[in-house]
Amino acid sequence: MRMAELSRRSRVSIPTIKFYLQQGLLDRGRLTSPNQADYGESHLERLRLVRALVEVGGLSVAATHELIADLDTPGRHLDERLGRVVRAIDGAPGDPDDTPAPARERVARLVDEHGWSDTSADYPARRRLEQLVATLARLGADDVLASLDRYAGLASEIAAADLDLLARHDREDAVLEHAIVVTVLGDALLGCMRRVAQAAESGRRYPRGGQESTGRGSSHA
Amino acid sequence: MRMAELSRRSRVSIPTIKFYLQQGLLDRGRLTSPNQADYGESHLERLRLVRALVEVGGLSVAATHELIADLDTPGRHLDERLGRVVRAIDGAPGDPDDTPAPARERVARLVDEHGWSDTSADYPARRRLEQLVATLARLGADDVLASLDRYAGLASEIAAADLDLLARHDREDAVLEHAIVVTVLGDALLGCMRRVAQAAESGRRYPRGGQESTGRGSSHA
Repeated sequence: MRMAELSRRSRVSIPTIKFYLQQGLLDRGRLTSPNQADYGESHLERLRLVRALVEVGGLSVAATHELIADLDTPGRHLDERLGRVVRAIDGAPGDPDDTPAPARERVARLVDEHGWSDTSADYPARRRLEQLVATLARLGADDVLASLDRYAGLASEIAAADLDLLARHDREDAVLEHAIVVTVLGDALLGCMRRVAQAAESGRRYPRGGQESTGRGSSHA
Repeated sequence: MRMAELSRRSRVSIPTIKFYLQQGLLDRGRLTSPNQADYGESHLERLRLVRALVEVGGLSVAATHELIADLDTPGRHLDERLGRVVRAIDGAPGDPDDTPAPARERVARLVDEHGWSDTSADYPARRRLEQLVATLARLGADDVLASLDRYAGLASEIAAADLDLLARHDREDAVLEHAIVVTVLGDALLGCMRRVAQAAESGRRYPRGGQESTGRGSSHA
């Protein structure tokens, strides 16, 4: 296909495609004349992945370059490629020594009980989870900590929905592209829906203007 | 109680308490001598609320001052106070005219179908949800959009867990304090657990090192 079609199908503008080509993020097409090149499906897939990394994941061009070279190393399995992409977006984990031991132990139990044991102890999200648990303990939010199990069960359901989404795609680049979209936009999406649902649930539990308008409702004892 | 006990019970340092007193975020205690004051339970509750707004919610001292004065206006019902706190933390909603009509209509249907209709159309989270839906459409992530319903169902379950947490508290200031902690830290907490659960689920669906190590597993067709 010509660059115009590549642009239309990828929804990436021609100047942006030219920029990616110039930066080496996308392979040059097969030259059909001195001024014209032909691009294939593999260019389309790669372009979508690059766009997801740069525009959605917020990676720098240099970081995207490095990650793509890394992903292209032969022998990488999809699960490993997925892990590398998420690590590149999430950044390096904090120093585990900064986190108090009780928080680390609490998260280790949670990981065990919810069958998350495959995640290595230096996974960035696990480090951050330990730091959050430590913050909640410092704030005295014991009730939130007591509800960790309930939230962890819901997190497993969300992750299953996420992986079901990825399973719809056949090409690995498409899986990676969608992993980035789901990883980055998925948190914001769920956060917004949670807020909207909270407002509705709060309105139901603490109805305004009714007999309970001077205090908290009694229907949720 | 003396300031030392107020500090111990609230886990807020004495210099920070003095700063809050000086900024008018906390009422002065009843003077028992020229250099000593006595503080009650209401000071403790208010101090925890202020700390949550400033340290967890990231509000400025000025914004906290304004919000607290606003919350103290007589006649405010808890649901309305909760809404004001969340709005202060989330910031002003974007301009709805910036969002394409299809995204607004899609969110309106979602809100209807999940019983979230109590949330007014200018709620910041709803505005942001519309903007995210527009971004996903622009990226061509139709499969994510097709899964909105499934995620919305999970968001409702999370919101029910959130409100159950708040229902454990009897005093309104404690409810507000916990709403801030849950609102701000809750998203990060769930995001981290989602990531850890995704990694475990990905490891299960795409096992490494087995016969399927050159491509995607076939067990999840």
